[in-house]
Amino acid sequence: MGKITIVGIGPGNISEMTPKARLAIETAEIIAGYNTYIKLIPELVSGKKIIGTAMMQEIERCQMAIEESRSGKNVALISSGDAGIYGMAGLVIDMILDLPENERPQFEVVAGISAVNAAAAILGAPLMHDFAVISLSDLMTPWELIKKRVECAAVGDFVIALYNPKSKKRVKNILEVQEILLRYKNKNTPVGIVTNAGRLNEQKIISTLENFTTEEINMFTLVLIGNSQTYVKAGFMITPRGY
Amino acid sequence: MGKITIVGIGPGNISEMTPKARLAIETAEIIAGYNTYIKLIPELVSGKKIIGTAMMQEIERCQMAIEESRSGKNVALISSGDAGIYGMAGLVIDMILDLPENERPQFEVVAGISAVNAAAAILGAPLMHDFAVISLSDLMTPWELIKKRVECAAVGDFVIALYNPKSKKRVKNILEVQEILLRYKNKNTPVGIVTNAGRLNEQKIISTLENFTTEEINMFTLVLIGNSQTYVKAGFMITPRGY
Repeated sequence: MGKITIVGIGPGNISEMTPKARLAIETAEIIAGYNTYIKLIPELVSGKKIIGTAMMQEIERCQMAIEESRSGKNVALISSGDAGIYGMAGLVIDMILDLPENERPQFEVVAGISAVNAAAAILGAPLMHDFAVISLSDLMTPWELIKKRVECAAVGDFVIALYNPKSKKRVKNILEVQEILLRYKNKNTPVGIVTNAGRLNEQKIISTLENFTTEEINMFTLVLIGNSQTYVKAGFMITPRGY
Repeated sequence: MGKITIVGIGPGNISEMTPKARLAIETAEIIAGYNTYIKLIPELVSGKKIIGTAMMQEIERCQMAIEESRSGKNVALISSGDAGIYGMAGLVIDMILDLPENERPQFEVVAGISAVNAAAAILGAPLMHDFAVISLSDLMTPWELIKKRVECAAVGDFVIALYNPKSKKRVKNILEVQEILLRYKNKNTPVGIVTNAGRLNEQKIISTLENFTTEEINMFTLVLIGNSQTYVKAGFMITPRGY
């Protein structure tokens, strides 16, 4: 029986991938993951068998990874960022644990630098205090629940990190969120918008809740909205630790 | 003018420190940080000048780090986990930006694997959906605000990650949080308790909101409370991606 390592590769540059993640990829015979992620690390995967599928074929990809590991191969199932945060860990572990105990491959999750960590480092220090992480993708979560979470996070004066703020087909959610937050938060609340954090073409914008626009936001963007104490100083976003 | 790099060293083992963090430490002449963290990486700091102070002397430590960098030295200011999450980044950046522009040392934040990432990887896949991160330390935050945030996170059905759940002097906060959460969440909601994640003596407990006890919780513990969909399977905690 082989092993499946569920690996978060971090933002996509080798210098922010942990040695543990790198070792798991180097010692795997098979690399499984969304093609976009695999392309981020060509030097680590060359010569290996690739199970690379397009988005939305997660179940097949996990099934193939499990089959390979059951036939004795070591498999690295990779996600960008942290495989444990909106990544592949949940699905594949569930599928492994559905197998009878003596037929399960070994598995391990290797944590990575997630988009919220990477974006915060670029913006300054926006996460010095309590924060909420919310995905605006309503593909598998009812939009009403997402909006409710945004409201709860606003009422609790959390710093708010938005994953998947906008895609080609989903452009209005972020505008609705802006509207909801303006009901609860000061219109001058700092908003940090980081695209391609830690990758080529990294871009950072600091604006306010009232004024930020969505043109520069896409599926590679992380949006960070401050709490009531967050301030901007010389182009950096800082949330103080104390109240 | 030297440079200050604010470095998150991750959980404390070298295999989960990014190459970027390691390089920043290796190329620094001076290492500043809480003694407990510096002791985690003896092989990287030996021979360097150490500005290691006990907890609660953060301002002096940052001042010394800034002075050294202004005199031309490269300084690594280290935090365990991610320096950008409840770490030292906010204070030192604020102090640097208080200086006149031509007297500021260069600075950079290097992200790390935070306790929430490390603990999640050990528990299985509890963070596949929206989550709130809350510190239970009421040293610099009013306890009423912390309790309000716990309530908001419960109403929003977030997975909840609790930092600083308990210290020697602060033992009741976590019990009050348990009480609050029991008003909103099913008593069988899975609770994961990870102590010394990624370090020696790592310990993992999976219990329920009703039954978890606090004996095994200390200042090196991260507590993760599931959302309404989180389940336990064969000793692993999984939050499904879809609703």
